Amino acid sequence: MAEIPESHPRRKSLISRKTIVEATKKGLLADSAMIAHGRGEAFDYLLGEKTSQIAKLSIKESAARLISAKSPVISVNGNTAVLAGKALIRVAAVLQCPIEINIYYRTKERMKLLYDFLELQKLNVSKERNPDKWKGDWGVAVMSVRILGREEDGRINGLEGPRAICSAEGIEKADVILVPLEDGDRCEVLVSLGKEVLVVDLNPLSRSAKMATVTIVDEVSRMADLLLEYVIADSSNVTKWNNNSALKETLKIISNNLDE
Amino acid sequence: MAEIPESHPRRKSLISRKTIVEATKKGLLADSAMIAHGRGEAFDYLLGEKTSQIAKLSIKESAARLISAKSPVISVNGNTAVLAGKALIRVAAVLQCPIEINIYYRTKERMKLLYDFLELQKLNVSKERNPDKWKGDWGVAVMSVRILGREEDGRINGLEGPRAICSAEGIEKADVILVPLEDGDRCEVLVSLGKEVLVVDLNPLSRSAKMATVTIVDEVSRMADLLLEYVIADSSNVTKWNNNSALKETLKIISNNLDE
Repeated sequence: MAEIPESHPRRKSLISRKTIVEATKKGLLADSAMIAHGRGEAFDYLLGEKTSQIAKLSIKESAARLISAKSPVISVNGNTAVLAGKALIRVAAVLQCPIEINIYYRTKERMKLLYDFLELQKLNVSKERNPDKWKGDWGVAVMSVRILGREEDGRINGLEGPRAICSAEGIEKADVILVPLEDGDRCEVLVSLGKEVLVVDLNPLSRSAKMATVTIVDEVSRMADLLLEYVIADSSNVTKWNNNSALKETLKIISNNLDE
Repeated sequence: MAEIPESHPRRKSLISRKTIVEATKKGLLADSAMIAHGRGEAFDYLLGEKTSQIAKLSIKESAARLISAKSPVISVNGNTAVLAGKALIRVAAVLQCPIEINIYYRTKERMKLLYDFLELQKLNVSKERNPDKWKGDWGVAVMSVRILGREEDGRINGLEGPRAICSAEGIEKADVILVPLEDGDRCEVLVSLGKEVLVVDLNPLSRSAKMATVTIVDEVSRMADLLLEYVIADSSNVTKWNNNSALKETLKIISNNLDE
């Protein structure tokens, strides 16, 4: 793919696209990852490629729930690792929670590639300066984030086959799970097990969007940067979140954009 | 990818996805073809994965314009060839017009792969029974369809670089061009050259959708099957098509689907 001019109005979106194409070539992503990315692009386009007010509220709510969780975990698939891995490592460092690699089309090779990718990103992030307003030893905080997933020693009760596989110390044990780009079935089962599921999905009509405890309808890397701010600020409280009405508000935003 | 159950409500969409993934592996498609497909999937999802009334009218209008053209041509890129190649060969056989392979990321290898792919599809289609209500020697009609594109002996005035390349007997000479999934710049230039451009694009907000003479907002393989019916029926007349108001109607359909 050609260079993207600095002035291009959709530069950020085109860079993400390039990142996904390159990660696919390196074998980090499943066959259909690019298709999933394209679907996301279309929904983001309809949202004006920016974080809406209601998305901000949902990220704030998610921050509050992650902070007050007993065992929070951030579950990442290939696309999320590639697009927002660094930002989510920062969030995990602040929360001091593990990140679990959990992919739909599970192969040993991709799990290892993603594990190595995230460990490298961890090293890179550990060398950054402290994030704004965060106090402490950043290097230590980052390097203590565990990247789970490869041990495959946990199970999600109620699912069959490879999709049931998870990490005992991660999703199995967790009371609050942040899962970008989750599949609908799994989201439903996780909720039925009494876990709080915070889903990031650009499609407000998807089954996971409807099943989640809190749905963040936003592009995953924008979301992750904001989430970092909110978990550092730690100013928000868990509310009685009405996810259905939040989704309706998002649909209204798309409708209004279409009407303009 | 796993087998898709007969009963799956989104079976057709999943088969298309599989087709695109497999064609990418064979080298028929550009890097970003899967991403483009995913974007299309999202818009089709919002349209309820069916051909709307206004899309049907736009296909009828396109049929009429192709029939009354002096030099019609059907331009195909990789995704279109793979998803609707056979159906568009049938349309070209009825219209007795050429098909031009015209791809954005042009390489000799992909041009050859797509050419061989379409020539093989031509052979397959030539062995089919006559389409419903079509009279004549089907084998002869199909085998006389020329697959243009590799000769690169034409230019689109007003464009620079590889995107200006076309076939002299195809797009350069044509007065009416059916172009699924066109890029916005090229669409604008073709229209400014006085050509009628019939664009198939699932995104009603895209620049090509706005620039086209007639925009068909529909999935390309559904569109191609209907177009075949309409070019055979030959019952429609060219009207003063108001493309802007057709696009607005499509946006209303999406809005209504979001509200439900």
